[in-house]
Amino acid sequence: MAGGLTHLNDKGEAHIVDIGDKAVTHRRAVAQARLSGRKETIATILAGGLKKGDALAVARIAGIMAAKKTSELIPLCHPLPLTKVSVDIEGDGESAILVRVTAETNGQTGVEMEALVAASTTALTLYDMAKAIDRAMVISDICLLEKSGGKSGDFVRSP
Amino acid sequence: MAGGLTHLNDKGEAHIVDIGDKAVTHRRAVAQARLSGRKETIATILAGGLKKGDALAVARIAGIMAAKKTSELIPLCHPLPLTKVSVDIEGDGESAILVRVTAETNGQTGVEMEALVAASTTALTLYDMAKAIDRAMVISDICLLEKSGGKSGDFVRSP
Amino acid sequence: MAGGLTHLNDKGEAHIVDIGDKAVTHRRAVAQARLSGRKETIATILAGGLKKGDALAVARIAGIMAAKKTSELIPLCHPLPLTKVSVDIEGDGESAILVRVTAETNGQTGVEMEALVAASTTALTLYDMAKAIDRAMVISDICLLEKSGGKSGDFVRSP
Amino acid sequence: MAGGLTHLNDKGEAHIVDIGDKAVTHRRAVAQARLSGRKETIATILAGGLKKGDALAVARIAGIMAAKKTSELIPLCHPLPLTKVSVDIEGDGESAILVRVTAETNGQTGVEMEALVAASTTALTLYDMAKAIDRAMVISDICLLEKSGGKSGDFVRSP
Amino acid sequence: MAGGLTHLNDKGEAHIVDIGDKAVTHRRAVAQARLSGRKETIATILAGGLKKGDALAVARIAGIMAAKKTSELIPLCHPLPLTKVSVDIEGDGESAILVRVTAETNGQTGVEMEALVAASTTALTLYDMAKAIDRAMVISDICLLEKSGGKSGDFVRSP
Amino acid sequence: MAGGLTHLNDKGEAHIVDIGDKAVTHRRAVAQARLSGRKETIATILAGGLKKGDALAVARIAGIMAAKKTSELIPLCHPLPLTKVSVDIEGDGESAILVRVTAETNGQTGVEMEALVAASTTALTLYDMAKAIDRAMVISDICLLEKSGGKSGDFVRSP
Repeated sequence: MAGGLTHLNDKGEAHIVDIGDKAVTHRRAVAQARLSGRKETIATILAGGLKKGDALAVARIAGIMAAKKTSELIPLCHPLPLTKVSVDIEGDGESAILVRVTAETNGQTGVEMEALVAASTTALTLYDMAKAIDRAMVISDICLLEKSGGKSGDFVRSP
Repeated sequence: MAGGLTHLNDKGEAHIVDIGDKAVTHRRAVAQARLSGRKETIATILAGGLKKGDALAVARIAGIMAAKKTSELIPLCHPLPLTKVSVDIEGDGESAILVRVTAETNGQTGVEMEALVAASTTALTLYDMAKAIDRAMVISDICLLEKSGGKSGDFVRSP
Repeated sequence: MAGGLTHLNDKGEAHIVDIGDKAVTHRRAVAQARLSGRKETIATILAGGLKKGDALAVARIAGIMAAKKTSELIPLCHPLPLTKVSVDIEGDGESAILVRVTAETNGQTGVEMEALVAASTTALTLYDMAKAIDRAMVISDICLLEKSGGKSGDFVRSP
Repeated sequence: MAGGLTHLNDKGEAHIVDIGDKAVTHRRAVAQARLSGRKETIATILAGGLKKGDALAVARIAGIMAAKKTSELIPLCHPLPLTKVSVDIEGDGESAILVRVTAETNGQTGVEMEALVAASTTALTLYDMAKAIDRAMVISDICLLEKSGGKSGDFVRSP
Repeated sequence: MAGGLTHLNDKGEAHIVDIGDKAVTHRRAVAQARLSGRKETIATILAGGLKKGDALAVARIAGIMAAKKTSELIPLCHPLPLTKVSVDIEGDGESAILVRVTAETNGQTGVEMEALVAASTTALTLYDMAKAIDRAMVISDICLLEKSGGKSGDFVRSP
Repeated sequence: MAGGLTHLNDKGEAHIVDIGDKAVTHRRAVAQARLSGRKETIATILAGGLKKGDALAVARIAGIMAAKKTSELIPLCHPLPLTKVSVDIEGDGESAILVRVTAETNGQTGVEMEALVAASTTALTLYDMAKAIDRAMVISDICLLEKSGGKSGDFVRSP
């Protein structure tokens, strides 16, 4: 491990760390992302998801499918079979939308990256659909909210 | 188009919009993402990229490869052949790292999403490598900095 | 070509046929698929797409994303950049749902397979969401409805 | 669950349903698809698989590889490691070809979608290879023939 | 460019080099790979491709599909739409099999990596099918035989 | 099984062989590949990995990510979740570079192909980065060095 980064060996070389001896436990992670824009943009996106509009469904599916692609995107992530993924999207005041993702598995390593990848991809997909009306939107506050399972113990983000 | 979202038709249904008649022009986009954490975490990541350590290279490659996967991740994005992708990663004060991505193509639609996907994936990969020492890191300020090419004209983010 | 199959050479070996000298023209294809089931199943699926339900949106997105994956699924298909994809899903009598996909590109080969792959994947996704209530549903009538562009001329399915 | 669709929650939002508590059992599914065309077309395809011709092998491999991609194609499918896949292709009268796929795993959820995706992709690949001589071919009768394993019990299609 | 490697910038950082201003020309590359093993193994593989056996077809399709995945595998490769791919597999003396791949495109960069990736994947697939009878097989002589198109001129390997 | 190839059935048809009844054991495989070129080329590549240069890191990541894609590349490979992957790259005399990969899992089948795919992809990525200065480089000696786990017993390559 080079200077504290577990994904690098003593020579500083990247590798997929050995988890072969870790216990199979139930793993759960919750992550979020926030998309901020002009009031009208946010209202338009949320309206696109109301009635019959597909907007929020598209973003939700994008997040779910991205969670399943996590080990293809994050080079040193272990592949693992998710047993559950859900994506919540809701207005957060007048000028923001909050995305919250829960991912779970029974496995030898955690699903934090799956939850984070899904949250950011959901927000990026909302951006994509609305970028023609507001290119200046910002995605922020991508972070882990909770995590349980595994030897490293539980984590709950301080408010 | 439903309430202003170009990616939805009049009935609110998602589709890949027709770009068949748009001109092929040179397209360029620059996007960023910021990873914030404790001073020691940021120092450890940056140190992992110094000397022979692979840390920043891993994140840079992750961003580049994610740019090429954009149309697989963002459901309504058109596939397009990128002609250039570069990813810069540097310290931003003592407690943050700034990622900046440039993407280019000659095509019928822009590469904003490619730049944004690369920036966020680079930041997520840095998070992955350091999460064992600091789960509370946050990714923020994912946004488009510049864009040129195409009928919608140039965009430069106001500082 | 072995016995009339263009994708096999004289020795019967599969290859991706050379399209390097074909003209770049506008290509368009329309394909369909039909999902049949018990009346209540079909009603439930269609209801799941009404109001805020995501059912039809999920299937529509699955079809759109599958269209973009066509050259990964059909071994001898050329990769090509789609300029448009749309997926229509509607009830077809009381015990069936009809999926209709339009795909377009400007390229050296047609987009029939893209439209067909999208239509079948949309129907399979509807099946997936409803299989817990009706495993006996059947997908049929997957066929090309129209095709234009390219040297082989236009095709319109006889009713 | 919205109106009976397990893949939607109470608000009608799509999610990957939680299978974390389901038992790991042996799962098996058999599915089929039928490709119909003019007599000469069907004869040509089958002949392309005789002798040294690759035609049927190409379609068989396409089906096998598609089975492994099922969770990338069907948005709400759980990823699972298949332990067996086989694809049979044979003439069905003079104007049709029947595809039959068996998929198996030891897991927490079934492999019906894997078998169905493989069957439809096999048929689509046969269509692709012969479309230059017969664009009017139709794929039909895609359905589940048998399923075993899991709490929902066995299923055998009524003839 | 760092010490002569075009894929690294002055600081030694990897990037996808800019080809936006390069001319679109016809590009062609031929590459090979050799699989060597015990006489009986090689005979068994070749026999598995004779008559109705799928062995060589499986390897050929694997090579063709890998060519289309090149930009996903080789991090700094540009994505490009192949216009032709063919894979020849034949015995090379009694204890080896020679794979030869031709790839073509009309584009701004060459297809050497596509041909090389296809050749090596074809050989690896042959290895996979025969490894139960001969784990000691070796793949060697993976190299570029010819290349044409583009500013860097033609290349023909010296015998 | 056709003439000794386990991946073909009695009729010579390819299938993914049934491993559902095999024991879950710890599996490990070590494979190598050698890239040979002119002295200056090899020196340039190795220098590109020294100091801050990303060259070796890019190749290492390519190998690691390819290992995770093995079942997408090798048609009859079972998908399996790797628990460890490491890639070593070092000079081998003045005119060659040796790549050595270790892959591990706990599963019902071995990881030889994962190790071999990673080794060859690492070597191909090094080739890609240096091909502008030396197109004549050759990749050879791709082979399995060691394998343990499973019913077929251990294998250590004779020197």
